[in-house]
Amino acid sequence: MIKIVKIGGNVLDDEAALKRFCRDFAALEGPKVLVHGGGALASRLQEKMGQKPLKIQGRRVTDADTLQVVTMVYAGWCNKQLVSLLQAEGCNAIGLSGCDGNVIKAAKRKPLEIEGKPVDFGFVGDVRPVSVNRPLLEALLAQGLVPVLSPINHDGAGKLLNTNADTVAACVAAALEAELWTCFEKDGVLADVNDPASVIPFITEADFLRLKASGIIADGMLPKLENAFRALRQGAQKAVILNAASLSKGIGTVMTL
Amino acid sequence: MIKIVKIGGNVLDDEAALKRFCRDFAALEGPKVLVHGGGALASRLQEKMGQKPLKIQGRRVTDADTLQVVTMVYAGWCNKQLVSLLQAEGCNAIGLSGCDGNVIKAAKRKPLEIEGKPVDFGFVGDVRPVSVNRPLLEALLAQGLVPVLSPINHDGAGKLLNTNADTVAACVAAALEAELWTCFEKDGVLADVNDPASVIPFITEADFLRLKASGIIADGMLPKLENAFRALRQGAQKAVILNAASLSKGIGTVMTL
Repeated sequence: MIKIVKIGGNVLDDEAALKRFCRDFAALEGPKVLVHGGGALASRLQEKMGQKPLKIQGRRVTDADTLQVVTMVYAGWCNKQLVSLLQAEGCNAIGLSGCDGNVIKAAKRKPLEIEGKPVDFGFVGDVRPVSVNRPLLEALLAQGLVPVLSPINHDGAGKLLNTNADTVAACVAAALEAELWTCFEKDGVLADVNDPASVIPFITEADFLRLKASGIIADGMLPKLENAFRALRQGAQKAVILNAASLSKGIGTVMTL
Repeated sequence: MIKIVKIGGNVLDDEAALKRFCRDFAALEGPKVLVHGGGALASRLQEKMGQKPLKIQGRRVTDADTLQVVTMVYAGWCNKQLVSLLQAEGCNAIGLSGCDGNVIKAAKRKPLEIEGKPVDFGFVGDVRPVSVNRPLLEALLAQGLVPVLSPINHDGAGKLLNTNADTVAACVAAALEAELWTCFEKDGVLADVNDPASVIPFITEADFLRLKASGIIADGMLPKLENAFRALRQGAQKAVILNAASLSKGIGTVMTL
């Protein structure tokens, strides 16, 4: 079974964690794909360049200048740094953004109504499992290559679009009928947010809706879980949320429908 | 015969020229590879970030901060912009830096003695035809993909290295026993630098050495020609220097040994 592993900014922003992650990822057996986010570097670079990072409800508004920065940071620095570190660990990684071989197409997000006003997020794209080029990914995997996907995708008409890396990972897992491994900085979904040892080993979608209603699962965990359950409904065979530092053990919270 | 087309900064820095080039390149028949340089954006970005671009004898000194900028600009923005524009023209481009699938390995340049002092160029690499992963490029071409190579390569031990795009194109042409098409802003090698119509249609290596000795070929043209003749000696089947705007006609100066 193919594993789709997603890592976020907390790993990319920490050199020691990144090296450790690359060693563990390289050692994972079987066909695999890595999907990465961006991390804090994009915001730091925007500030250095005199741009003002703007987020509305946690989502980055991406004008033309911001698109250039996130493309440079995600598709350039983060992607190539990851690939070169993986190559050094003997993992034959190949870094791709959505335009490369048309591996993922995105649709520009239409303005959303927020608090009664239309908000245009700019060069932001949405992806779906059907936008994933499964034959290309399978051909690369069959050659022993390990795709490393940045969240910069394209519309097929010459425009790059900034997309959400969690959604990209979920869509790729669904399209390839694969396992979705979402890494973050905790050991799994916690029954008590103040007790790092209170990891819930298994959650069904019914459990999730109950825990969400009671407020036990809240804030930043909600989109991660919603994303995982959507991937399962759309074709992913397994979904697990785990600590990036526990990748080699593969233990976290397993979600099932 | 595979064509290796090299474009430089003058095309990348001009939006209209870039779109035209992408249309012409997409229409070129047969298997092909595009190699691009960086352009002025890297220097502009360095200045915006408060870095001071440093060149010694025309070569960029690449410290850790500079490496991050050139990786972001060349492997990120330039590469993905080119690929997305080519995809929009129906060309199934796939952007790669040297680390991707280990397509090109580079060796860190040792400090050079310049005017009696050792100069360390930092994260600058040198490439050779044997550093080119011919099986991977052939496999991608056989799948109908068109590799688009940035001049950011790697040492195989986790370090990215900035390399010269003309040398990358020459090495790829030699390794694939291909044609080397070097695009620039003139119609070819000129017999009279002040007369744009004085294009020399054919130059042998003996002609070149004579024109160099008499000062007719000088300055920026010297490395372009030396590079082309080296590619021919190392295995390239043909070498032509032409105007990026004349790509569809394929007319310029043809070099032969």
